[in-house]
Amino acid sequence: MMKVIESIAEMAEISRQVHLRNQRLGFVPTMGYLHEGHLSLMRVARQDSDILAVSIFVNPTQFAPGEDFEKYPRNFEGDQVLCRQEGVDILFYPAAQEMYKPDHKTYVITDQLAARLCGIRRPTHFQGVTTIVAKLFNIIQPDLAVFGQKDAQQILIIRRMVEDLNFPVKIMVAPIIREADGLAMSSRNKYLTPDLRTKALVLNRALREAERLIQGGEKKTRIIEESMLGMIRMVPEVRLDYLAIVDSNNLEPVAEIKSNTLIDLAAYLGTTRLIDNVLIT
Amino acid sequence: MMKVIESIAEMAEISRQVHLRNQRLGFVPTMGYLHEGHLSLMRVARQDSDILAVSIFVNPTQFAPGEDFEKYPRNFEGDQVLCRQEGVDILFYPAAQEMYKPDHKTYVITDQLAARLCGIRRPTHFQGVTTIVAKLFNIIQPDLAVFGQKDAQQILIIRRMVEDLNFPVKIMVAPIIREADGLAMSSRNKYLTPDLRTKALVLNRALREAERLIQGGEKKTRIIEESMLGMIRMVPEVRLDYLAIVDSNNLEPVAEIKSNTLIDLAAYLGTTRLIDNVLIT
Repeated sequence: MMKVIESIAEMAEISRQVHLRNQRLGFVPTMGYLHEGHLSLMRVARQDSDILAVSIFVNPTQFAPGEDFEKYPRNFEGDQVLCRQEGVDILFYPAAQEMYKPDHKTYVITDQLAARLCGIRRPTHFQGVTTIVAKLFNIIQPDLAVFGQKDAQQILIIRRMVEDLNFPVKIMVAPIIREADGLAMSSRNKYLTPDLRTKALVLNRALREAERLIQGGEKKTRIIEESMLGMIRMVPEVRLDYLAIVDSNNLEPVAEIKSNTLIDLAAYLGTTRLIDNVLIT
Repeated sequence: MMKVIESIAEMAEISRQVHLRNQRLGFVPTMGYLHEGHLSLMRVARQDSDILAVSIFVNPTQFAPGEDFEKYPRNFEGDQVLCRQEGVDILFYPAAQEMYKPDHKTYVITDQLAARLCGIRRPTHFQGVTTIVAKLFNIIQPDLAVFGQKDAQQILIIRRMVEDLNFPVKIMVAPIIREADGLAMSSRNKYLTPDLRTKALVLNRALREAERLIQGGEKKTRIIEESMLGMIRMVPEVRLDYLAIVDSNNLEPVAEIKSNTLIDLAAYLGTTRLIDNVLIT
């Protein structure tokens, strides 16, 4: 029977009881409007947990003024049904005023990593992410937490935070889940008109092209970038924010493909910002 | 039998075992060179704990370049004797390279609070304090932690961090412990020559004068400040860094004394920086 918990104090007490029973607590933080990508994270967490906790919280501090915080899609009724189907034990669903007091002043920062890639256009985004994840870890005290590879930069930053601040939490990563046509699943896909939805497919096509070139032996990132950019420029509705071929451990650009190279991109379609990536292992 | 632990992993595992036994874990973080002030914190923690952990770690990130990190006094042998006498169960004594990896990038910040008072002269000091305390809380997982009122701004910042980031730790505060002549105890007092040691007493005398005025009914902070400044200026060897009469909840200056007013000061004697304060309750 899934418990829905809105209070921090109640959530913390439940976690304490779970640990007193020496049960392993798995955790998946989400902003709700759940799709197959989120459910795949829950399945990964489930395998390694006695108790599975999911949070649904649209975190205001990771949105800048003018971004889509207010209109970010929400569907708590539907989300509850999906969580029950996935065997979630605890659904933590706090209100914004429960999570942030009016005089909130503390943030967790990971300077250089947070300033790159998505951080160029969204300079306060990752500070909001690390702060809310630190809060959720302290409230829920999970033994493990699962994040999606789609948010590649977020994973790097969360791993760095966990290591630097010694959170006793194992971070697990689950692969990108795509629609049948290849579009990476995202709650923001719902913003797209049918036409832009089709146009957005070029992002995944460009990533597949990069993989094809690399499998064919191409090492030079300049060649791969040019090929990807050529494809994306064919679709003028896709305004590229960045395309970056970087070391996935530090986000530094690499001149030649090696293991742990991340090919990462972000683009606007109308006002909708989408991200996608491929990790060369 | 006191355990001395140098490894983070070992410390975390011991804490896990303590919690599995449902024992209450109290914690006193220190930078070592222990004096009666530290011991008083341990006694406060002991009263409310089944297991008492103390850390000794001279934290490099709270010293700026040119400050006294290298020469900060250390006496691990003597500290161990004192901890055993106080019935400490676990002494956590990690090396600097155990606590900070070369690519450490994550910091906990409490913006406005950390920029005031001591933060004016030491702009990165409190970021180092919040970061190391967050790390120690995550490693040791204490139920309660005790800090000294002497570091009044630190207490406010730690409390704010604990509340904002939802650390499941009760913060307790122990009063300032003074030498027989009134000087607030500090590991840095050892830097003082006998002459400066005597001159430093004016700091406590000025705070006592403030208390006397307030007990006599004086409300105006301007009058109290002028009286204190008059005393301190009589001792030219004491170079005042700041004298601030502020609301202890937000460090904002107050024009009239009310409850929770903090009278806080810092001064240099030679190159030694001392702090002292009184909290009007």
